[in-house]
Amino acid sequence: MRNIKLTIEYDGKRYLGWQRLGDSEKTIQGKIESVIEQMTNEKIEIIGSGRTDAGAHAKGQAANFKTNSEMARNEMLAFFNRYLPGDIVVKKVEEMPERFHARYNVKGKQYSYYVWNDPIPTAFERYHSFYFPQTLDMDKMTAACEKLIGKHDFAGFSALKKTKKSTTRTIDDISIEREGSMLHFTFVGDGFLHKMVRILMGTILEIGAGKLELIVIDEIFETKVRENAGETVPAHGLFLDEVYY
Amino acid sequence: MRNIKLTIEYDGKRYLGWQRLGDSEKTIQGKIESVIEQMTNEKIEIIGSGRTDAGAHAKGQAANFKTNSEMARNEMLAFFNRYLPGDIVVKKVEEMPERFHARYNVKGKQYSYYVWNDPIPTAFERYHSFYFPQTLDMDKMTAACEKLIGKHDFAGFSALKKTKKSTTRTIDDISIEREGSMLHFTFVGDGFLHKMVRILMGTILEIGAGKLELIVIDEIFETKVRENAGETVPAHGLFLDEVYY
Repeated sequence: MRNIKLTIEYDGKRYLGWQRLGDSEKTIQGKIESVIEQMTNEKIEIIGSGRTDAGAHAKGQAANFKTNSEMARNEMLAFFNRYLPGDIVVKKVEEMPERFHARYNVKGKQYSYYVWNDPIPTAFERYHSFYFPQTLDMDKMTAACEKLIGKHDFAGFSALKKTKKSTTRTIDDISIEREGSMLHFTFVGDGFLHKMVRILMGTILEIGAGKLELIVIDEIFETKVRENAGETVPAHGLFLDEVYY
Repeated sequence: MRNIKLTIEYDGKRYLGWQRLGDSEKTIQGKIESVIEQMTNEKIEIIGSGRTDAGAHAKGQAANFKTNSEMARNEMLAFFNRYLPGDIVVKKVEEMPERFHARYNVKGKQYSYYVWNDPIPTAFERYHSFYFPQTLDMDKMTAACEKLIGKHDFAGFSALKKTKKSTTRTIDDISIEREGSMLHFTFVGDGFLHKMVRILMGTILEIGAGKLELIVIDEIFETKVRENAGETVPAHGLFLDEVYY
């Protein structure tokens, strides 16, 4: 059997997230699986690198599936982009070794979060950024990012219920760039817990706006109390940029 | 009476264009006028710098209206952005001399046109660019732009019916920039005829794709036969960037 890897871009606005639910029509996974069924006449389940939240986007989600189809890779690519809705695009189709697994083999991920930081809102980026008009202290936000970088137990920065699985993750880098009114935050790490990027972002923004003190980060690492962190910012500012294997 | 100038950004996707028609709910002008009515309790007609086509966008449309309202400018700005739909944003409210007229006083305009030039489509920019996957010869397109710059009779590059009004316009500059898969064309001139930017763009693209020869531009300037020019490209790649007074 062939093992096919897909690199996928999607605008998550109309969807309930990556993972197929009862109503597959409203999930990215469901949409892709139904095109694969059309393409191969096989009933196939694809494995994503991980879920993305309802409304969140991806520029480089990764997934794999096994098939007996003999269709060439470039034909598959064309088939996907002919039959998928316009807000889901397959960017790459690759042939992988039999043992490649899009979830188990993840080495790391990069996420972006966009914040529209201006008294005047944006007509064009309103579904692809979080509108946060308050003045932000860049030095304080940079200091917050420095504190978050490294190997920590991020349990207090996640929406996880109590779990026996490890909640320790390593963040390799968090960077902030401003282009006009748009702030672009980039997170690189070996893995991110449920809603972790959105809770980290909420905390960084509240520190930048002077609503939270820098010290809360140390406290949350120690106490693991999620309530002490910032709000969970909306999913529509979040992009899964790339999955590293 | 006060004379108020507005600078307006809008995502034209959901609208029938700038100009109010019977169903004002589907035009940008209609949406803005109904918020002004709410704001001032006056029935006011606003004057735009010119129409924009159904589906076309603006980053800096200009308009003016006269009012007896005493509301401060910053309060007006806040009122607009609270009550307008999220895809229409008022960026500036300015107090103008009594004789300022947003259409008669136009000195020039800048338009942008975006082309997604890649075999793979885009999930994010599909309503803000024209998907044109064919290979384009940048040198030929640059030569086409050079020929179009200057003072010419653009009748053959417009959707106008026969008219007694002058169809001579001056294009000061057309530039092309590539950022990844996105081509960004910028047009600056003293005025543009009905659908002129979209027909110029269709012609430039067909020259770049080798479907039309460079010489057609001279021929159309001479014969004024619109049928010899390229197709009218879709409105959703078009942005009115700025109106000069």
